Amino acid sequence: MVEVPEVVIERLPLYLRALRQLQEEGLEVVSSQQLGERLQMTPAQIRKDLSYFGRFGKQGRGYNVRQLAQVLRTILGLDREWRVAVVGVGRLGRAIISYPGFAPEGFHIVAAFDVDPSLVGRVLDGVEVRPVEEMDTVLPRQGVHIGIVAVPASHAQEVIDRLVACGVRGILNYAPITPQVPEGVTVRTMDPVLVLQAMTYHLKRRVSPGLRVG
Amino acid sequence: MVEVPEVVIERLPLYLRALRQLQEEGLEVVSSQQLGERLQMTPAQIRKDLSYFGRFGKQGRGYNVRQLAQVLRTILGLDREWRVAVVGVGRLGRAIISYPGFAPEGFHIVAAFDVDPSLVGRVLDGVEVRPVEEMDTVLPRQGVHIGIVAVPASHAQEVIDRLVACGVRGILNYAPITPQVPEGVTVRTMDPVLVLQAMTYHLKRRVSPGLRVG
Repeated sequence: MVEVPEVVIERLPLYLRALRQLQEEGLEVVSSQQLGERLQMTPAQIRKDLSYFGRFGKQGRGYNVRQLAQVLRTILGLDREWRVAVVGVGRLGRAIISYPGFAPEGFHIVAAFDVDPSLVGRVLDGVEVRPVEEMDTVLPRQGVHIGIVAVPASHAQEVIDRLVACGVRGILNYAPITPQVPEGVTVRTMDPVLVLQAMTYHLKRRVSPGLRVG
Repeated sequence: MVEVPEVVIERLPLYLRALRQLQEEGLEVVSSQQLGERLQMTPAQIRKDLSYFGRFGKQGRGYNVRQLAQVLRTILGLDREWRVAVVGVGRLGRAIISYPGFAPEGFHIVAAFDVDPSLVGRVLDGVEVRPVEEMDTVLPRQGVHIGIVAVPASHAQEVIDRLVACGVRGILNYAPITPQVPEGVTVRTMDPVLVLQAMTYHLKRRVSPGLRVG
């Protein structure tokens, strides 16, 4: 089987979201052209990405919206429920727990941990905060697949090691570190500073130093 | 000039961060091997990425840590200050404003906006929340280069359009939409759901349905 490039996999959720919008709008068939316009991508790119997974759509007829959405859900493993734990319930961790976007997509936050005794025992959006010492017992018992790390950088690697030791194989890390994980564990870092630092590569060509925009 | 692939640009901040850590640890010279170990990347990848920007390091001698860090800062446009506005100061917007990681990297949050009259006028970490109607006057006056969008999905495109109309050329979007922007504007979306949905592609191969981890 051909190894699918990671950038392609990362675009599949975008396609899925666009397809669902089209479905809500009542569209039954969509061309790669239409999908491309919505996603600001070329139709060729979309066709190439999807070709990794088989033949979808008929030449000149476009894709069946509902079918393609279902296929993408299966490919991505979204036809099931995923159980998530949040470690660190400071300002960021609380924003994550209260974010209403996870549950409808099948990501259920079932556990939360913190070191701060003043936070332990509090119930945040239905989830009780537990001491980090209990990760080893709670994570397997709750069948947690994914850990979201929202602790300070200085503790992030330690927390990640512990999640991995507890059998968690997917980690979404919000701390500004480059996590070290063993093979077989998928880790992704959400770091707005890194994103901004890559963005300024493009901005610096458009804005002279000291020049005010607008 | 060769067009540098976006994935390469996105890795440069990671290199920079690793170099700064090495500098703090007192290292003066680093090999692509050592850098690779720290970043869980191959030395060949690192050498190839850096080769887009010139010749660094001497064959078999490695890179001068301080010099390479300085070059990367210049390439990325990080040798200057960037002025940032946050639109939407709900739970997420407040977490962003209070995040201590931006200012040390030269990203200064100088303005904040919200539609909610109960939030307008409040001062969050030294930044006064203003009504969105004032974006047109405040953004150019404050010389804002980058807008961070932390409003609900239903209002995000509208806010992005307004930022663009005010001359903002870099947008970090936290709303779960695919933003439409004109050419010459760089937009990046931070969407944890999209990241999780791509992660499960990998996880589903390791976890059988219904099987508990641990």
